[in-house]
Amino acid sequence: MSSGEDDLIARYFRPLATDPGALGLIDDAALLKPSGDDLVVTADAIVEGVHFLPDDPPETIARKALRVNLSDLAAKGATPAGFVLTLALREANEAWLAPFARALGEDAAAFDCPLLGGDTVSTPGPLMISITAFGRVPPGAMVRRDSAKAGDRIAVTGTIGDAALGLRLLGNRIAGEGLDASSRDFLIQRYRVPQPRNALAHAIRDHASAAMDVSDGLAGDLAKLCAASKVSATVEMASVPFSAPARGLLANGSVDAETLVSGGDDYEVICTVPENRWEAFVAAARLAGVAVSRIGVISAGADGPSFRDADGKPIVLKRLSYSHF
Amino acid sequence: MSSGEDDLIARYFRPLATDPGALGLIDDAALLKPSGDDLVVTADAIVEGVHFLPDDPPETIARKALRVNLSDLAAKGATPAGFVLTLALREANEAWLAPFARALGEDAAAFDCPLLGGDTVSTPGPLMISITAFGRVPPGAMVRRDSAKAGDRIAVTGTIGDAALGLRLLGNRIAGEGLDASSRDFLIQRYRVPQPRNALAHAIRDHASAAMDVSDGLAGDLAKLCAASKVSATVEMASVPFSAPARGLLANGSVDAETLVSGGDDYEVICTVPENRWEAFVAAARLAGVAVSRIGVISAGADGPSFRDADGKPIVLKRLSYSHF
Repeated sequence: MSSGEDDLIARYFRPLATDPGALGLIDDAALLKPSGDDLVVTADAIVEGVHFLPDDPPETIARKALRVNLSDLAAKGATPAGFVLTLALREANEAWLAPFARALGEDAAAFDCPLLGGDTVSTPGPLMISITAFGRVPPGAMVRRDSAKAGDRIAVTGTIGDAALGLRLLGNRIAGEGLDASSRDFLIQRYRVPQPRNALAHAIRDHASAAMDVSDGLAGDLAKLCAASKVSATVEMASVPFSAPARGLLANGSVDAETLVSGGDDYEVICTVPENRWEAFVAAARLAGVAVSRIGVISAGADGPSFRDADGKPIVLKRLSYSHF
Repeated sequence: MSSGEDDLIARYFRPLATDPGALGLIDDAALLKPSGDDLVVTADAIVEGVHFLPDDPPETIARKALRVNLSDLAAKGATPAGFVLTLALREANEAWLAPFARALGEDAAAFDCPLLGGDTVSTPGPLMISITAFGRVPPGAMVRRDSAKAGDRIAVTGTIGDAALGLRLLGNRIAGEGLDASSRDFLIQRYRVPQPRNALAHAIRDHASAAMDVSDGLAGDLAKLCAASKVSATVEMASVPFSAPARGLLANGSVDAETLVSGGDDYEVICTVPENRWEAFVAAARLAGVAVSRIGVISAGADGPSFRDADGKPIVLKRLSYSHF
C-alpha cells in the first residue's frame, strides 16, 4: 500500500531516526520534549549550483547541509537537539541516496543531532536540501549578534578563506600554482565539508558577548554583527588566521587577502569577548581543542569595520561578502 | 553595508517577525521559550510546477505554503507556535515578493503562527518554499497516527476531492461541463488555498484516538494510518463528503469517485474516534464550526482499507494517492 516516497523514507532515512521524538518517521510530525531550556532554531538551505557543485559527492553534500546548520547552533552557544530535513530531488536514485543518507547519519551521530522528521518532494529543478536544526541553551543564554560592546576583543575560530579558495580551484578560477596535491585537497575539502565549531559552544556561551557564524565572508559578517550591535570594529589583517595553503597562494600572488576575508563558506565562528573574559575564553577554547585567533577590537561608532595593514593603514575592501541577490 | 539578501529580508519579512523569539530576523537563529508543553514539529515544502502552478498568484502560494503545515499541526491536536521559512527564489522581484509577504503575514496573524526566522537563497530552478512549523500540546497529548483501534469510527473534515478537481480544471484535464463560474472558482480556490482545520485541534486532542491530515489522497492516507496502527478499515463511499460542485461533476460523469478519494491537496483531517467519544467529538466539532462526516469504521486485520458501495460491495481503487516518486 505504500508509495515510492514512503519506501524511500523507510529505506534511507528511517535508520537515522534513532531519537524517540522522530516517531520512526511514520507520523506527520516530530516531538521535542520540554527540557526547561530555551530552544534555538535555525534554518539553512543549500542548492545545487549555488552552495555546492553538481558533481560534488553525495557524502559531502549531506555533511555540508547539516553542518552549515550546526555551525549556527555553535555560534549561538547551543547544544544540538535534532533537525528536520526537506529534500527536493529530481529522482529517487539509489546510487545517490544511499551514500547521502549514510553520511548524514554519520554526522547526525557524531554531532549528537538526530534526524527528527522532514519532507521529501520531487522537483524538476536543482537538488535542494533545506534543514531546520534545533539546539538547547539555558533560559536567556543564547549568544546573540546584537550585544557586542566597545572594547570587546574580536576572536575568530580556525582559518579564513580556505573554502573560497577551494571553490575557485574547483572552478579553475585560480591556477593554484605551487600547490601540492594535499594542499589542493585540503582547500577543496574545506569548501565541501565545513568543520562547525560545536566543541566551542560552551566557551562561547560562557564568555562571548556576541557571536555569529562566518558563512558569507568574514568582512561582511563582522559588518552585520557590528550593525546589529550598533558598534564599529578594527581588524588587523595580519592577525586574520590563514591556513598554510592559503598563505602560499597569498605569497605567490595567486590570490589577495580581500578574496579570503570576503569569500563565503568558512563556517567558522566570529565572536566578541570582553577583555576581562579573554584569558578564560582562550583557556576554554584550548580545552575544547578549537583554535581561536584574536583579530581586532570592537570600537564605538556607526562606521563599518575597518581592516588595517601592518602599518595601521586602512585597507579598502571593494566587496565584503557573498549575497544571493 | 548590507547585502541584497539582507535588504530583501528587512523589507519584506521583518514586518512579519512580530514574535519576540524572531529577534527581528537580525540573528542567525530564533528562540522558542519553554512552556512545559511538548513541541510538535512539522516540515512541508511546496515546489513550483509540483505543488503549485507557475502562474498561481503569489498570495495563494504564500497561503498554501503555510497552510499545508498548519494542517499537520491541526491533525496532531497542536496549537500553532510559529514557523521558519526557507525561500528559494530565482530573483528578488518586488512585484512577486510584496504580495507574497503580505499574504503570508496575514495568514501568520490569522492562525496565530508567527514567522520566527528562516533562510533566503537563490536558485536557478523552480521556486520552492520550505516551511518548518511548530505547535504546542500538553505533554504526551500529541495525536499520533499509530494509535487507531478496531471499532473506532472514522471521521473526515470538510469535503474531499475538491482540490484534485481544481487542479484538473486549471490543467484543462476535465471539461467541467455544467459547472457555473462560482463552482469552478470554488474548486480552483480549494486547490490553491487549503483551509486547515486548526479550529478542530482541541477536539481532536480531546477525543480522537489517531489522526493525520489528508494531503496525498483520502484512500492512501487512510491506508497509511491503518498501516501505522496495524489495523484495517471499511469506508462507505456514499458517506465520503463531496462538495456540491464535486457531486455535480460526479453526476454528469466528468469524474469518478476514485479520482476524488485518491486525489491530493485536500488538507482535511482524517481521525479515528472511539465509539464512546463520538457524540462528544461531534458536539465539539459543531462548536468549533468545522463540518465532520463519519465515513467508516476501523477493523482488526492487516489488509488495507476497503471502500464499499451502497450495496456493501467492495470498490477496487487502482490508485490510492499521490506519490512523488
